[in-house]
Amino acid sequence: MFSERIDSLKPSPIRAILSVIDRPGMISFAGGLPASETLPTWSASIPQDALQYGPTEGEPDLRVAVSEQLCRLGIDAPPERVMILAGSQQGIDLVAKLFVDRGTAVAVQSPTYLAALQVFRLYGAQFVELGSERALDARLAYVVPTFANPTGTCASDAERVDRARVCRETQTVLFEDDPYRDLAYDSCDRTPIVARMHGGSWVYQGSFSKTFAPGLRLGFLAASEEIFGRLVLLKQATDLHTSRLSQRIVTEAITDPGWAARLEGLAAFYRGRRDAFASALNRHLGTMADWETPPGGLFFWLRLRNAIDTRLLLDESLARGVAFMPGEEFFPTEPLLGTMRLNFTHAGDDTDRGLAMLADLLGEHRL
Amino acid sequence: MFSERIDSLKPSPIRAILSVIDRPGMISFAGGLPASETLPTWSASIPQDALQYGPTEGEPDLRVAVSEQLCRLGIDAPPERVMILAGSQQGIDLVAKLFVDRGTAVAVQSPTYLAALQVFRLYGAQFVELGSERALDARLAYVVPTFANPTGTCASDAERVDRARVCRETQTVLFEDDPYRDLAYDSCDRTPIVARMHGGSWVYQGSFSKTFAPGLRLGFLAASEEIFGRLVLLKQATDLHTSRLSQRIVTEAITDPGWAARLEGLAAFYRGRRDAFASALNRHLGTMADWETPPGGLFFWLRLRNAIDTRLLLDESLARGVAFMPGEEFFPTEPLLGTMRLNFTHAGDDTDRGLAMLADLLGEHRL
Repeated sequence: MFSERIDSLKPSPIRAILSVIDRPGMISFAGGLPASETLPTWSASIPQDALQYGPTEGEPDLRVAVSEQLCRLGIDAPPERVMILAGSQQGIDLVAKLFVDRGTAVAVQSPTYLAALQVFRLYGAQFVELGSERALDARLAYVVPTFANPTGTCASDAERVDRARVCRETQTVLFEDDPYRDLAYDSCDRTPIVARMHGGSWVYQGSFSKTFAPGLRLGFLAASEEIFGRLVLLKQATDLHTSRLSQRIVTEAITDPGWAARLEGLAAFYRGRRDAFASALNRHLGTMADWETPPGGLFFWLRLRNAIDTRLLLDESLARGVAFMPGEEFFPTEPLLGTMRLNFTHAGDDTDRGLAMLADLLGEHRL
Repeated sequence: MFSERIDSLKPSPIRAILSVIDRPGMISFAGGLPASETLPTWSASIPQDALQYGPTEGEPDLRVAVSEQLCRLGIDAPPERVMILAGSQQGIDLVAKLFVDRGTAVAVQSPTYLAALQVFRLYGAQFVELGSERALDARLAYVVPTFANPTGTCASDAERVDRARVCRETQTVLFEDDPYRDLAYDSCDRTPIVARMHGGSWVYQGSFSKTFAPGLRLGFLAASEEIFGRLVLLKQATDLHTSRLSQRIVTEAITDPGWAARLEGLAAFYRGRRDAFASALNRHLGTMADWETPPGGLFFWLRLRNAIDTRLLLDESLARGVAFMPGEEFFPTEPLLGTMRLNFTHAGDDTDRGLAMLADLLGEHRL
């Protein structure tokens, strides 16, 4: 009855987690949710002309504003090659639709963003590991070089230069996903890889979900010439265009003189959360797991010394009121057991209690 | 470099039209745009909790409100099987993703909604004509029974009963697209076909683009049990969820005591436009074309007595400042030449002048 691609649609723990995350008292380390305290307050009178159908590529003013940001990063992204998205998840769907057939080789980091893997899989991707010999034949390379999800790592300058060179030489399309770049807590090279491509085919995307408001569903992409027009046609077939009201609000926000200060304040706030989380982790899980403190982004990535499949612990953990993301879900092929992704931005004052409960649970499952 | 499905992505006249439609002085009969006068005025203070990530299925209040509307129409659509969409174009993409592989038989009316054909084609559909022998083996049947796009026709009671029976008996999934149902100007049977299914597999979708504001991108679908959950997973992979702000605004609007009056006023306003358009058509094109007056919706469907391929006239027409949709684009396979879709709701006072120009152009191309 269904299409072949639906065979790859497996129930993921995300849905189980989402269904309980609003339960009163639940402490969530699971999602990539911004801290509620950081969400803006806003009121808008809605101009009538924002209520009519609009252009597929997005509102001209917003495309200009995004283009200016991207050009400052060194990306060759004039306004006419910027498209506004309904969040960056949509960009992944459009890029997969454009490039991936059944059996198409797609190079990815391992582990990498779960929901990107799901989409590529849906279109039939065969995953190969970025940096491997087989990756040289991949049609598409998907990378999150800056504060990767789930690991939080930031690629070095040399790695970025090398990635750009390899993609150009092997004519692999580079798809750089950069939703966390403004959440930087330590200094590190964040130059987009696409800014180092100097030719070749690429798509770069970002999001306002982490810096402004996920509920508005707003992201953007830029792409090299031969790709951009086709992505616009696919966007048109997908939803005609993104909510013009969301676009107006975000345009107002990011062109406001206070925008840079907002980003700085946000990074400072989250830096504090990260440091507090690191201390709590040391207290409760110091003898059970290893991790690096992430220089940016939203997540700690834990490797348990007891390599138990954390997917098996999730139900019990949710029942006790603590949500986390099993790390095993983030692997394109064979998972590394005993891994966990913990969000440090959302739980706030409940962090210490939540980590204590998690430590108890893990303690009970020692070999 | 690109996926195989991209071969079906042909430049469509829609984009050529969209790119000139905002040109000052352009008279447009092309789009399905609401009259600007009918767009609401609205202002909103944005509750912070609408800015956080939300549920994939949509805001609970809106799902309940939509469910109530659908149940009143006789559709088996409890709130837990209602999903909010970023416009009904998205519903077409999700349904195609769920059912259509390369070579999958999809039964459609001929002619039918251009952008639905594009999406089904993208996923590899083979079109068969609804009602034909071959349609009995189709996996999916896509129908717009109420004020069809482009023809404006409304299926009779007997046709609806029959369509429901055939789909049930042949185990074809019925996909009923119903964006125009509230724009009814003459009395006719509008009972959704899915309300007559009594079993079988179905998806029903509607939109707030025609009754409230297309710029917010908001639609909805309901589906039978075995289908609904998979559509939710696909929606999640596509854009996580629809803008919560758009959802809040539409919830407020459709639960307002004035909503029914708004719909009545809208229908009265458009009925007037339709009648004025019919008179102008008679004056200018009475000897050149045939048509029926549509009982609802947004379009007149013209069959020219001189069966010239109207796609060949479009550039010249746009150059003279009049946009129309070549009817040939709406055919799943071989087009009927000499057909045109004219929107009667948008051009307002410019209608008479626009039709006169169109008549001149057609006159110059007589055999």
